[in-house]
Amino acid sequence: MLHTPASFQPLLLPQDSEAPLNFVLRQGQLLLNGPELALPDNAALRRLGLDEAEAHPLGLWDGRYCRVIAASDESLPDNSHAWHGLRALFGVKDDAFIGMAGRASQLVEWARSHRYCGVCATPMERLRGERAAKCPACGFTAYPRISPAMMVLIRKGDAVLLAMHAQSPYKRYTALAGFLEAGESAEDAVHREVWEEVGLRVHNLKYFGSQSWPFPHSLMLAYTAEYLDGDIKVDPAEISEARWFGPGDDFPEIPPGVSIASELINAHRPR
Amino acid sequence: MLHTPASFQPLLLPQDSEAPLNFVLRQGQLLLNGPELALPDNAALRRLGLDEAEAHPLGLWDGRYCRVIAASDESLPDNSHAWHGLRALFGVKDDAFIGMAGRASQLVEWARSHRYCGVCATPMERLRGERAAKCPACGFTAYPRISPAMMVLIRKGDAVLLAMHAQSPYKRYTALAGFLEAGESAEDAVHREVWEEVGLRVHNLKYFGSQSWPFPHSLMLAYTAEYLDGDIKVDPAEISEARWFGPGDDFPEIPPGVSIASELINAHRPR
Repeated sequence: MLHTPASFQPLLLPQDSEAPLNFVLRQGQLLLNGPELALPDNAALRRLGLDEAEAHPLGLWDGRYCRVIAASDESLPDNSHAWHGLRALFGVKDDAFIGMAGRASQLVEWARSHRYCGVCATPMERLRGERAAKCPACGFTAYPRISPAMMVLIRKGDAVLLAMHAQSPYKRYTALAGFLEAGESAEDAVHREVWEEVGLRVHNLKYFGSQSWPFPHSLMLAYTAEYLDGDIKVDPAEISEARWFGPGDDFPEIPPGVSIASELINAHRPR
Repeated sequence: MLHTPASFQPLLLPQDSEAPLNFVLRQGQLLLNGPELALPDNAALRRLGLDEAEAHPLGLWDGRYCRVIAASDESLPDNSHAWHGLRALFGVKDDAFIGMAGRASQLVEWARSHRYCGVCATPMERLRGERAAKCPACGFTAYPRISPAMMVLIRKGDAVLLAMHAQSPYKRYTALAGFLEAGESAEDAVHREVWEEVGLRVHNLKYFGSQSWPFPHSLMLAYTAEYLDGDIKVDPAEISEARWFGPGDDFPEIPPGVSIASELINAHRPR
């Protein structure tokens, strides 16, 4: 695949550039204008009373500077604007837009949760020209948080193991998944979660791919693994049901096509 | 490979267990006893005036409970103890020990940097039975921070691209590497860093493996990629030199055997 890298530069917005593209976010919702779901212009920002000096540079997109500003309440600049959940935009807007909106959402959440220094409670300062916040008192520096998680589809011959997560609002089957713990590799996390959630052991791990998942700031690392030994024994706190689906079985409803979970499962669906 | 998962449970230390294994850390240094580099016992903790109630459970290792306590200064319980940098223990202690020490180091750094809520500056409370800190005022919850980074070895026929990082204290060649930005996949980060650091485009990415790198809390995701197009043009802020090494070239000094960098480079070393 030919890939032109996305740019996260420049980190300072030039004063003389044409109007930047505005991503305005509030609690994971994005402000968009009209049926074409356009980004709000500077006039809309002013009507909301938003301070442009509070914007974070997001990088370049199609040669245009992008920035994100957090809104403090759910006011709208006018009736043609509305708040949209990011998930609802998957499949509606293109991937580049979704990527930029996800990045915007993560930066706003990072700024919100790093107003004060976690070490000494002093108000943090934003470093100009870097995507970082620094404490002027103790020097602690914090970068946007990304939480790596792993997902694994276990294979046994032509069958795959799918599970329903006990905590998920969606009653559908998917692959096993969980956050990495401090001090373990992604492969360690695969073995540990498989053991903890369904009591199995696996081997022959194969990497499938990764995906940024901005709810609020995950990085999903997807793998397949082959069943080695053990009988399924679910941890009821995590998993409400787990079973093998083989050729000829009715294949259940799986997550929609925007997530790496659906790609992973569809690529290994029993025929 | 047969893998018995490491356990991060239980998160509460039972009162009646035999003495847990003590990891005592201070600024990335681990307290060890005698020439055999043993973990300090409870008597040593008491001589240092450390409060066992401040310990974080680390999980099980060889059936023993492990915990970590942060020391506030460099005092020693006696002359048989000394502080040891974690890096110096790579290759000296076994991998399971290094893994547990790395996890201990990350948890201590997380506890240090999450004393106060980043949203509202209220002192955070530790959640019992979870590895999490929660703000009693606003509800913000923070888990140990892990910073994903990628590493990529670019191949061009039998040659590989190695670079000297401008900021590194070690004047040796290694693969390209960098932290992921919010909102990008690991593969996105590979394309972006290759473009930014050496001005090349690559394709045919292949995952090599991952490693926890507790300095202070990285997760390294290693890949190979094939050269696609472009001429080497280094970003001097990041890279002091980058060049191809092929069969017959004097192969340079590379990072030592404990890092995934050396594994990645040695696995693709031109013969």
